[in-house]
Amino acid sequence: MAFLDENYLLTNNTAKKVYNQIKDLPILDAHNHADIKEIRENKNYSDIWFIEAATDHYVWELLRKRGVDEKYITGNVSNKEKWMKLSEVFEDLVANPVYEWVHLDLQRRFGIDLLINEKNAEKIWDQTKEILSQKNFKPQSLLKEMNVEVMCSTDDPIDSLEHHRALKESDCKTKILPTWRPDKSMRINKEDFPEYIGKVGQRVQKEILTIDDLIDALQKTHDFFEKMGAKASDHGVEIPFGYNIDHEKADQIFKKRMRGKKVNKEEEKAYMSYMLHQFGQMNVKSNWVMQIHLGAVRDIRNKLYNNIGPDSGGDISNHFISIVEPLKAFLNKFDGRLKIVLYALDPTHYPTLATLTRAFGETVSLGAAWWFNDSPIGMKRQLEYIGTVDLLMTFAGMVTDSRKLMSYGSRTEMFRRVLSDVLGNLVEKGQIPLDLAIQSAKHICYERKRNLFNF
Amino acid sequence: MAFLDENYLLTNNTAKKVYNQIKDLPILDAHNHADIKEIRENKNYSDIWFIEAATDHYVWELLRKRGVDEKYITGNVSNKEKWMKLSEVFEDLVANPVYEWVHLDLQRRFGIDLLINEKNAEKIWDQTKEILSQKNFKPQSLLKEMNVEVMCSTDDPIDSLEHHRALKESDCKTKILPTWRPDKSMRINKEDFPEYIGKVGQRVQKEILTIDDLIDALQKTHDFFEKMGAKASDHGVEIPFGYNIDHEKADQIFKKRMRGKKVNKEEEKAYMSYMLHQFGQMNVKSNWVMQIHLGAVRDIRNKLYNNIGPDSGGDISNHFISIVEPLKAFLNKFDGRLKIVLYALDPTHYPTLATLTRAFGETVSLGAAWWFNDSPIGMKRQLEYIGTVDLLMTFAGMVTDSRKLMSYGSRTEMFRRVLSDVLGNLVEKGQIPLDLAIQSAKHICYERKRNLFNF
Amino acid sequence: MAFLDENYLLTNNTAKKVYNQIKDLPILDAHNHADIKEIRENKNYSDIWFIEAATDHYVWELLRKRGVDEKYITGNVSNKEKWMKLSEVFEDLVANPVYEWVHLDLQRRFGIDLLINEKNAEKIWDQTKEILSQKNFKPQSLLKEMNVEVMCSTDDPIDSLEHHRALKESDCKTKILPTWRPDKSMRINKEDFPEYIGKVGQRVQKEILTIDDLIDALQKTHDFFEKMGAKASDHGVEIPFGYNIDHEKADQIFKKRMRGKKVNKEEEKAYMSYMLHQFGQMNVKSNWVMQIHLGAVRDIRNKLYNNIGPDSGGDISNHFISIVEPLKAFLNKFDGRLKIVLYALDPTHYPTLATLTRAFGETVSLGAAWWFNDSPIGMKRQLEYIGTVDLLMTFAGMVTDSRKLMSYGSRTEMFRRVLSDVLGNLVEKGQIPLDLAIQSAKHICYERKRNLFNF
Repeated sequence: MAFLDENYLLTNNTAKKVYNQIKDLPILDAHNHADIKEIRENKNYSDIWFIEAATDHYVWELLRKRGVDEKYITGNVSNKEKWMKLSEVFEDLVANPVYEWVHLDLQRRFGIDLLINEKNAEKIWDQTKEILSQKNFKPQSLLKEMNVEVMCSTDDPIDSLEHHRALKESDCKTKILPTWRPDKSMRINKEDFPEYIGKVGQRVQKEILTIDDLIDALQKTHDFFEKMGAKASDHGVEIPFGYNIDHEKADQIFKKRMRGKKVNKEEEKAYMSYMLHQFGQMNVKSNWVMQIHLGAVRDIRNKLYNNIGPDSGGDISNHFISIVEPLKAFLNKFDGRLKIVLYALDPTHYPTLATLTRAFGETVSLGAAWWFNDSPIGMKRQLEYIGTVDLLMTFAGMVTDSRKLMSYGSRTEMFRRVLSDVLGNLVEKGQIPLDLAIQSAKHICYERKRNLFNF
Repeated sequence: MAFLDENYLLTNNTAKKVYNQIKDLPILDAHNHADIKEIRENKNYSDIWFIEAATDHYVWELLRKRGVDEKYITGNVSNKEKWMKLSEVFEDLVANPVYEWVHLDLQRRFGIDLLINEKNAEKIWDQTKEILSQKNFKPQSLLKEMNVEVMCSTDDPIDSLEHHRALKESDCKTKILPTWRPDKSMRINKEDFPEYIGKVGQRVQKEILTIDDLIDALQKTHDFFEKMGAKASDHGVEIPFGYNIDHEKADQIFKKRMRGKKVNKEEEKAYMSYMLHQFGQMNVKSNWVMQIHLGAVRDIRNKLYNNIGPDSGGDISNHFISIVEPLKAFLNKFDGRLKIVLYALDPTHYPTLATLTRAFGETVSLGAAWWFNDSPIGMKRQLEYIGTVDLLMTFAGMVTDSRKLMSYGSRTEMFRRVLSDVLGNLVEKGQIPLDLAIQSAKHICYERKRNLFNF
Repeated sequence: MAFLDENYLLTNNTAKKVYNQIKDLPILDAHNHADIKEIRENKNYSDIWFIEAATDHYVWELLRKRGVDEKYITGNVSNKEKWMKLSEVFEDLVANPVYEWVHLDLQRRFGIDLLINEKNAEKIWDQTKEILSQKNFKPQSLLKEMNVEVMCSTDDPIDSLEHHRALKESDCKTKILPTWRPDKSMRINKEDFPEYIGKVGQRVQKEILTIDDLIDALQKTHDFFEKMGAKASDHGVEIPFGYNIDHEKADQIFKKRMRGKKVNKEEEKAYMSYMLHQFGQMNVKSNWVMQIHLGAVRDIRNKLYNNIGPDSGGDISNHFISIVEPLKAFLNKFDGRLKIVLYALDPTHYPTLATLTRAFGETVSLGAAWWFNDSPIGMKRQLEYIGTVDLLMTFAGMVTDSRKLMSYGSRTEMFRRVLSDVLGNLVEKGQIPLDLAIQSAKHICYERKRNLFNF
């Protein structure tokens, strides 16, 4: 088999049959980090570094790992210099999905079969530069070519969604929906929390003095997102605190913080729990899906956080996190009333989460293999496992979690091939009939997401 | 390969050779939840729903997951209506072992090749109804057909074991032994604990006022179980508390609870630890195997627990549980004197348990892949791993953990095929000689259990 | 495929191609437990028990597991009796890497194809006895035959390194370097801690009254090891405490202990943290690699510890250990300045450690699958995974961790075959080009270690 050829990741004939039935299905992507302004403006891209690496911390981390100086990653040298440096070390990224994704983009989008290395660096720079200047290489036509039918960006509640609005009114074929992610209003001990709360107040033109004021203001943004087509909220939490907390206690903690004092660990837990319940209530009302991304320990590397800022690569997973105890009151309170998707960052949390989603029935689903697990082996291990504990057919489905537009195609292709291989193997081992494998694959890639998210 | 055909789960020729050598070995099943009354009465079964789903919470949970209304699961509609509803959604259970088990039963026991779906539902109902009314389709003949030589049920110490006695005196070919499971006397903070202790007293006709009275009473039931052929005790604990605790302290905690007061977390730990040590002592005396099922977080879903009761599906595993610290005093105290089998519910606990069973030598063994792990992938991952840390030949062997009589055959077949495949792969990779693979497979399926449990 | 033949562990043709390119590379072994005196004296070995089992607790544990009496393991019977007993039960070690390693040694080193069992025991004893008496069967010629270019032993800071010195001055072709492992100066609550500190003082001929005295003394041994060619320190810790601790606080804790008092848990953590930072500082100065072996719970089985002593088999791994919280201050403090290799004993810690090593960039690396994971399945699962989260090319590479000289060859062969198979599979699935697989395999087996450790 040749590198990334038509049988890429398909290890048997049944897998190939299954993949043929799903490869052309439209993409429904419930979670990503799209730059909506970029899509709206719909300009040509400058170069291969910009489109592949400039906004993608997956690439940054690996370049750092290989000892590339920060100036060639997030620094001020030219994109061409950055690309040349990336090409020097790119072979050392072998066995990491980034190696496959970028080459998939080169082959599938640009039609370039060259391997990225020092020798080919200049040639690839030039060839892609030329292609990127062509008319059909703008964001909206790329989305169309990649067959993206619906995609959900990740947005702060105070976002004006002006670019979403403009796109809605444009003739862009892809349905681009916002996702309401109120993490900043949860992180009560961050330096800029009071300032952020001020901005929330400004957004709804009402001063926020109590936690009720805050909930009201956030509800208004929730209503606005709903009007703008949002189908889901999203929440990033290290530990999913969801204890039952008195309104009065939460209000006191909030007021303490707004007076400029930091709150203690117990108060932080209580506040975050209270807010999660409030968000759950809002989502019940709108029949939204509540996506919880749990287990990410953020900004662990001081050097990066201090010099580059958050979301630059200093994040890790941590096996040593309690999930059941903090989450059970929340799951019970909203049992049967709220659609919840749980994403685990640490694969050692899968058994806990899979048995939890099994126990809570129809409305609680396990999310896709996330971030560090978004690789052929990570997805394979998860997919092989989910169905044996929970149900594969009620798994929430793949999301791209993209940090760059080019990712929609390559990440989706990788997932669909892995899914086909997993189902193909089950058929080859006599565990399921072929017809059912094909029917399941289609369902998981399309109908399931359509039904779950009301796309 | 066709669905569930003769090569089901066997991915190479060596695996097939191995399986051929073990497929007809008698079944020795050290742990299940058999309904002994049902076996004793030995009546024909009413229908396919009754025999496949009515008593099996594995099926219930998946139907709930697919959104089936509770009335079609544990409710009052007819079994036929329940079966029709199950058939509607059964294809969505694909990739879950329940999908394979029920079809295995249909094929192997009923000789019916039809797939369970809406179209075939009525036909399967009718065909199985007819077969179930035949003379040879009674519990005892089914056990004989499935080649069950010994099976151990799970029983409360105060059980009269009247059905075991009757079976012992009958001409039933299967040896049906009780297992002493004193969990209710461990769960000190349950509402009905004092009431239960009262029942223990009644059972031995002596009032229980002190913890010594309780131990004496339980010892009498232990003696009785021994006389009735029991070879093992069984214990279900979330955390395996086994600290060294003073007699006086334990007595005080017990008396406090018997006065109607709940005890605190520390007292609960101490009481449970004390009792575990007492049970260990009883088992040493009888040379029984002490089975510990650890890590199940019970009744997490309030809705199920409140409406349906325990053991109805609201149970999960939890990675975030300490095992070594609570268990080490117990293991050291009984080192070399007590046969212990440790079953882990969360697969992330396997490395801890496998290294623990390795460290404690001959008398401590790792138990089979349990419950959520009792699937081809769950068993495969465990079997591939056990032998590399501990020894595959001293693994405690497969148990069916059945919730219905039909499971003995299908669950055993699945395990033996997976074991054959794992050993076959080792041969194919040149890691072990073929003869030894066959010899090991036979040992694991039969002699090992016979020796360990004194069957 | 036949047992241990040329295709052992290689499941496809690409794997075979890759293996052919790396099988003859010299061995660079950054961590083992070599007996340097034995190598220096370079005498013939007495018998197969001595060379395969006498010093290897991996073998001991499995014999105990099979119920072999301690007298045939570490007791006083003759080596021949021990070998005969081992042979009686050796078939029961099937699927454990010990079964493969010992047979590999027999085949590759002795040219004996016999299987170890009761029938062949005497014959193997005699044949190996004869071979072991030959001139080329001495430690140094064996090291040469196994192509060991560099190996690093594990040594206490107060070791005189006389044997290393003698070897350095001899014509031994293998470069044998010491590794500085100051664990005894970390384990403050051990009974013999004050006594050990006294010995450290004697080593540098200065009384140790304060923690500064201790640091000075240890620095002197560090300098001495550097002069003797050491390239790394090594640290065995259950939990990797690396908090920022005041000098004065650490000094007080040290003095309290030196006055004969045990310190409490918090003080122990503080002391160990302080020392880890000091060791880090010393390693920065010498540009050494700091190897941290974390997660081993030592001497859990009292019977072994009391009767045989430490390192006799009563060690386990424990999933329930916090790593991120204790380690993050240390990693940040030395970020970019200190080369660190993290070895995890529990495979459930891999995701945490792999994301941690990814986050901290070039200078922090994940170590090889250690101890209980040093098996084909353990290495395969680790290698398949590492590259998808971190980079395979910056993985610290295989170490033998040998407890006996014969292990260098067989353990290295096993690793290289598994690595070839993992890379071969990636090629076969179209995930990487063949040339790059070969280039990566060579790099991981040789250049990477050379660069990392400055061999």
